[in-house]
Amino acid sequence: MLTPVNLDARFEDVTELWSPKVIGRVNDQYVKIARVHGEFLWHAHADEDELFLVVRGTLRIQLEDGEVTLGPGELVVVPRGVRHNPVAAEECWVMLVEPVATKHTGDVVTERTRSIEEQLGAGHD
Amino acid sequence: MLTPVNLDARFEDVTELWSPKVIGRVNDQYVKIARVHGEFLWHAHADEDELFLVVRGTLRIQLEDGEVTLGPGELVVVPRGVRHNPVAAEECWVMLVEPVATKHTGDVVTERTRSIEEQLGAGHD
Repeated sequence: MLTPVNLDARFEDVTELWSPKVIGRVNDQYVKIARVHGEFLWHAHADEDELFLVVRGTLRIQLEDGEVTLGPGELVVVPRGVRHNPVAAEECWVMLVEPVATKHTGDVVTERTRSIEEQLGAGHD
Repeated sequence: MLTPVNLDARFEDVTELWSPKVIGRVNDQYVKIARVHGEFLWHAHADEDELFLVVRGTLRIQLEDGEVTLGPGELVVVPRGVRHNPVAAEECWVMLVEPVATKHTGDVVTERTRSIEEQLGAGHD
């Protein structure tokens, strides 16, 4: 039998900011959730589009030619190769869809970078 | 610049039940929305997983070994090859993620089957 995923419940389990957790897989894409607050870092994913869907709060995604602001129930796809920097003035809950091959911080590596093993965690099915 | 998609606003634009509309693309997957009410039909997609995320209402997905029930903020991935039949006792708004190659009603074709051109509609970017 299939087990539904309750987004709010899974977000409640997340304890670390800016640390995506895989909650499912659809074809070659992972579905992830992340609690974010503050500013992340500028990066790009050369070969992967990345979908952001805000579940709670407000997310600004800074782009080189401006920025987009997402509230609950709003989504945007950042196309491959587009440099972006997520920023949340208050804590924000965001769902992501991106290829299983996507690296967390794309073309840069910092102390904030989380490996896919860290993103898969213990709760992965 | 990127344009955010407001799910509620896009659902409001949908006039036909069981007729998915593409609202975005992330890599080789379409993001779609559908307003559903009543019973759909039993079908399977041989090669494609299908993600269902309920935005409003309640969706039951009947499976050959039982069923799952999704409320708002709940999602499930129906794996490739698994026969399923979506049912909604009241109108339900559901977001889907599935490959661009996915056929609406999978291995069956009925008068309810919508082509990808019908799903892309006029509002596709």
